[in-house]
Amino acid sequence: MEPYRLTATEAIARIKSDTLTVEAYAKSLLSRIQQRDPVVRAWAHLDPDLVLRRARELDRIPPSQRGPLHGAAVGVKDVIYTRDMPTQHNSPIYADPSPVALDAGCVAVLRDAGALILGKTTTTQFAATVAGPATTNPHDPARTPGGSSSGSGAAVGDFQVPLALGTQTGGSTIRPGSFNGVYAFKPTWGAISREGLKIYSLMLDTLGLYARSVEDLELLSDVLALKDDETPEKRDGVQGMKFALLKNARDVFPEPGPGTKGAMEKAAALLRQNGATVDEVEFPWPEFEKVPRWHRCVMSTDGRTAFLPEYRSHRERLDPFLVGHVENAGAYTHRDRLEALDGIAALRPKVDAVLASFDALLTPSVPDEAPPGIESTGSAAFNGVWTALHVPVVNVPGFQGENGLPVGVSLVASRYRDRHLLEVSGVVGKIFEAQGGWTRKNI
Amino acid sequence: MEPYRLTATEAIARIKSDTLTVEAYAKSLLSRIQQRDPVVRAWAHLDPDLVLRRARELDRIPPSQRGPLHGAAVGVKDVIYTRDMPTQHNSPIYADPSPVALDAGCVAVLRDAGALILGKTTTTQFAATVAGPATTNPHDPARTPGGSSSGSGAAVGDFQVPLALGTQTGGSTIRPGSFNGVYAFKPTWGAISREGLKIYSLMLDTLGLYARSVEDLELLSDVLALKDDETPEKRDGVQGMKFALLKNARDVFPEPGPGTKGAMEKAAALLRQNGATVDEVEFPWPEFEKVPRWHRCVMSTDGRTAFLPEYRSHRERLDPFLVGHVENAGAYTHRDRLEALDGIAALRPKVDAVLASFDALLTPSVPDEAPPGIESTGSAAFNGVWTALHVPVVNVPGFQGENGLPVGVSLVASRYRDRHLLEVSGVVGKIFEAQGGWTRKNI
Repeated sequence: MEPYRLTATEAIARIKSDTLTVEAYAKSLLSRIQQRDPVVRAWAHLDPDLVLRRARELDRIPPSQRGPLHGAAVGVKDVIYTRDMPTQHNSPIYADPSPVALDAGCVAVLRDAGALILGKTTTTQFAATVAGPATTNPHDPARTPGGSSSGSGAAVGDFQVPLALGTQTGGSTIRPGSFNGVYAFKPTWGAISREGLKIYSLMLDTLGLYARSVEDLELLSDVLALKDDETPEKRDGVQGMKFALLKNARDVFPEPGPGTKGAMEKAAALLRQNGATVDEVEFPWPEFEKVPRWHRCVMSTDGRTAFLPEYRSHRERLDPFLVGHVENAGAYTHRDRLEALDGIAALRPKVDAVLASFDALLTPSVPDEAPPGIESTGSAAFNGVWTALHVPVVNVPGFQGENGLPVGVSLVASRYRDRHLLEVSGVVGKIFEAQGGWTRKNI
Repeated sequence: MEPYRLTATEAIARIKSDTLTVEAYAKSLLSRIQQRDPVVRAWAHLDPDLVLRRARELDRIPPSQRGPLHGAAVGVKDVIYTRDMPTQHNSPIYADPSPVALDAGCVAVLRDAGALILGKTTTTQFAATVAGPATTNPHDPARTPGGSSSGSGAAVGDFQVPLALGTQTGGSTIRPGSFNGVYAFKPTWGAISREGLKIYSLMLDTLGLYARSVEDLELLSDVLALKDDETPEKRDGVQGMKFALLKNARDVFPEPGPGTKGAMEKAAALLRQNGATVDEVEFPWPEFEKVPRWHRCVMSTDGRTAFLPEYRSHRERLDPFLVGHVENAGAYTHRDRLEALDGIAALRPKVDAVLASFDALLTPSVPDEAPPGIESTGSAAFNGVWTALHVPVVNVPGFQGENGLPVGVSLVASRYRDRHLLEVSGVVGKIFEAQGGWTRKNI
């Protein structure tokens, strides 16, 4: 198998056993990118010479001093600072290609563990709009890869890199996960350093992780020190597991399209066939239906503060949607904002208590498969609620829509059961990938 | 009067009326610093040539294009990024003197309004420990200026700069305000961009502002777009105002020392003498007494995440207190953390509702005047609760301790009544400064 097709775990094993050098691995990835980039356009910045130089530096490290990610290649969303590559936020205000001499906290931790930072992946402006970059869906170049972590989702889905970092304020990690047919993980809010990630909303922004296997997400989670209070039980199947479906989903989510409807039905059926229970559960609090509105209010009022600096100096070069945040186009009062912040905060422990009785809640990741066109990155209607609630979410791929594009479903657990959720996602993913009906036929 | 003694508002007026150039103003401040720095040591970085170059650039801007802060000098705490000066966090890990090419959001907004960034002020390590930098109290070089915004508080108190930026996670803005005899303002959490401020705790860190007059704090607040839902009534005295004293303060605060006790009694008496009512109020929720413990838990568990990157690469150069955060010396579980986060969140609207009936709550800023020695920056025992509750706080100077050092008191309002609180602090401050008994006799 060509090295570029390996998962990070597989690549690390080959490098460890001296059957692959980091340089050779990097060359394979770069050659894949060179071949595919004219169509997929997942990279905002990629400097092959720098990558090869870093790869050779890694190869020179004595085996005894190598970290757990030694040689694993990572794409970094272009709203996350990297000291040796520019960080441009898809904004003309930050067009200067000089790197800012600062690694985001997560990048520093990955580098320290031996990761090879491959390049910067495309984003919508400041990860805060739905106006797509030039990136296309690797499974159909006429469709969006989703956003705002467009390049990270597309590059991992297209075997250009095994791991990538994204962010999520609405649905910016989970949506591209579903559209590109990869695993996407939004950990519990606050579980990983957000130092060096451009801020949109302090209360919502969360680092996201992409991979083509749950094993790879676990590897990243080890390095990033994600740890539950109780070490999760190792599982080899879903036998005896308890899953929940949200009964009053229509209070907060739109009606899903046929792709997602089919995926949800098939997912529940497969879990039951494999010995799990799947039960409807209700979030019985009337204020629960306010969460989408509250989420928008927090995002907009946080954005009002976050983009004031850019607005003051470069108003004409700021996306009109973000100008609207700063100018308070939504006419939100501070009272509205506090009702939203306090209302969501009060719901978090209630939701946790319900989720605690289940291994995971099964819920849509997206309205449907990736829609045609790359102008818009699609809808985050199924994600904002979970982002606001700070709970961990994993997009598990395996299903497909009417046009054969991938459709994933989300698994959700209570806060700080990140490792439990990954364990569950691992066994669930094996079933969905094998029997869900979608295969990577176009790549 | 020597220009260095002017408030920012006064200096701006002279520059506007062409009776002072920014360059001449900068020279006056630099000369004051040169004279006093050997004792006070408030600056982590100061480059007189750069300051004079920037001052001359400001002087060359045509009057019609000048911003509302044109020529106002600002000190910036050394955990806040400035594109043309190093940002070193008082950490050997960040000893590299090259600037990171990034302005914090607040710095960008101030620069855009015409501020002259004077230099970087000292801090405790990452604004996260109580181990003092070399800075001394301008009123007594044998005593601490407080921390962690040590240099910002001392420099403003010592007439080295009229305005300065600090941060507060526990009591890092208010404490130096009291110890140095200046106004210190911790706005509502989330009201000002925190882009480019080193992160300790997402839930607690707040930008802080220093000045020697409330008028100057209002000027900064205008530029930083702080705005209440209702425009506060203009006041010319405290006649008819309603102040609260916390009846069950002993549930959450230690017993204050004589300096603070005296200041609190005198403050209440002066308010009453000037026509205000001062009434005791109770926060009647039993969980209120858990807030100091919850605050420590959030700080420690957020610190566990925040300092992981530095811990991984430079453990031996990280302050042992912060190593303790990362290694979870407090043995906090995620369950403890969620109880703390959710518990504080549930109290915020309750506290707001009580505070809404008053113009402000009057509460100690510090245990007493600045203690002897500069090894420790003192106790934040009176501040963490308000930081956790996200409410705005102003330290109002005017009183003194047994050794003649300044003692301030805090005024607190409900969230997002920042401008109301400043309005109240303005009239209260006039009374306290005139009749509180403390004058800047040592400077």
